[in-house]
Amino acid sequence: MKPLYVIKIGGNVIDNSENLYHFLKDFTALDGHKILVHGGGKIATQISEQMGIESNLVDGRRITDIETLRVVTMVYAGLINKNIVAQLQRFGTNAIGLTGADGNFIKAVKRPVKTIDYGFVGDLDETSVNAVNISNLIEAGFTPAFCALTHDGHGQMLNTNADTIASALAVALSGQYETILIYCFEKKGVLKNIDDDESLIQDIDPASYEVLKKEQIIHSGMLPKLDNAFKAIACGVKAVVIGKSDELSKLQQNQIFGTRLSK
Amino acid sequence: MKPLYVIKIGGNVIDNSENLYHFLKDFTALDGHKILVHGGGKIATQISEQMGIESNLVDGRRITDIETLRVVTMVYAGLINKNIVAQLQRFGTNAIGLTGADGNFIKAVKRPVKTIDYGFVGDLDETSVNAVNISNLIEAGFTPAFCALTHDGHGQMLNTNADTIASALAVALSGQYETILIYCFEKKGVLKNIDDDESLIQDIDPASYEVLKKEQIIHSGMLPKLDNAFKAIACGVKAVVIGKSDELSKLQQNQIFGTRLSK
Repeated sequence: MKPLYVIKIGGNVIDNSENLYHFLKDFTALDGHKILVHGGGKIATQISEQMGIESNLVDGRRITDIETLRVVTMVYAGLINKNIVAQLQRFGTNAIGLTGADGNFIKAVKRPVKTIDYGFVGDLDETSVNAVNISNLIEAGFTPAFCALTHDGHGQMLNTNADTIASALAVALSGQYETILIYCFEKKGVLKNIDDDESLIQDIDPASYEVLKKEQIIHSGMLPKLDNAFKAIACGVKAVVIGKSDELSKLQQNQIFGTRLSK
Repeated sequence: MKPLYVIKIGGNVIDNSENLYHFLKDFTALDGHKILVHGGGKIATQISEQMGIESNLVDGRRITDIETLRVVTMVYAGLINKNIVAQLQRFGTNAIGLTGADGNFIKAVKRPVKTIDYGFVGDLDETSVNAVNISNLIEAGFTPAFCALTHDGHGQMLNTNADTIASALAVALSGQYETILIYCFEKKGVLKNIDDDESLIQDIDPASYEVLKKEQIIHSGMLPKLDNAFKAIACGVKAVVIGKSDELSKLQQNQIFGTRLSK
């Protein structure tokens, strides 16, 4: 099987035009099939404020009401996505900017209302990603760039977490490709000591993960990310790499890049 | 050669959700390969006002300064385009929403500053449309839905007239397909008497066009549209049809739809 990189970037890349420039250049230089997935960064909040739309938070979590959905559809699929595509084209990556509605690539289910109504938020399951349609696009010579939006198949756009989209894509495409899922963030990877960039843990497998948890070297915010990574690996993803966005070129040069989670 | 419809819609469809719903249903019912091209309608102006961005008009024409470009990128490529795509998917059209930056499909040249600086506006020439990339996408099973944005190939998005995009697509793809270019607007077609919907002129060829102009039956606003239509026909487009958006289903049913311009 051919390798396929699914690479997710977040606010630390998107909100800084210099970081974004360098990242997209390095992304282009990386050989092989690739999918980019990006979150929204702070721009949606700024545009919301400029439009006089109040952010609606419940228990610290943002609610996607209809006005907020309009803003994120504009900002994620329009402003951010198309600027990323135009930059990628400039560097020579034949990118196509997408939401899950395009090509019916990712169909989500509106999150059911329990105690909190999250509004127009879409959750994914194992049937959400249309792997055949996406690989048709890739094999036709295009590089998909997904933003954090999906649809319900009945005409409704839905806001969906970018980490979740990246993971669902990597799992669903693992039948056709040897998928490597890469999460870019602001740290070099999983660190033994969060204040020491040199304390990078290069490799984690399920056995060493248990030890790291028991010794409380990995804790709090990192746990759900790593739990989800090992779930993706159990579902067919070859490896999950967590690394620093401005070091992506190390991957191409076969140098140590981030923390690699695998079986 | 297989037929390909390139269908352009404007504000009268986009600004009215009921019109849009019916149009997209009829679009889906139309057999064969299709490309949709849409303009922006009034929504960009509304969002600009909501964001406190002033419209900058010179001699009655809108200038696309950097703030306006941000708004139209959000509104055209995000809000309008993705809602159209989600609706098309609901009806069963496997649409992909695009700008000219995506897939490097349409590369424009920023309009040179002469007496007026139009800002980030892109003009097209005969090399602008990448017909090979677009037909790859179509042959992979997708229906392109273009908004009125292109790029310059150097990372810059550009605002480009939707009529011009539709015409350039139809001309460029006439090497691979038998292209029919359809402009949907609020009238039934070219009318002998603008106040009488029953006075539709069904067919115009270059000879009868000369007569209609000489007799001043066609004048003012319609002239540039028809001149451009005959230019497209001279460059390989099989026919240009100008008709009413809510009558598109007549085309599928082999009934009279609009005014058909051909050689």
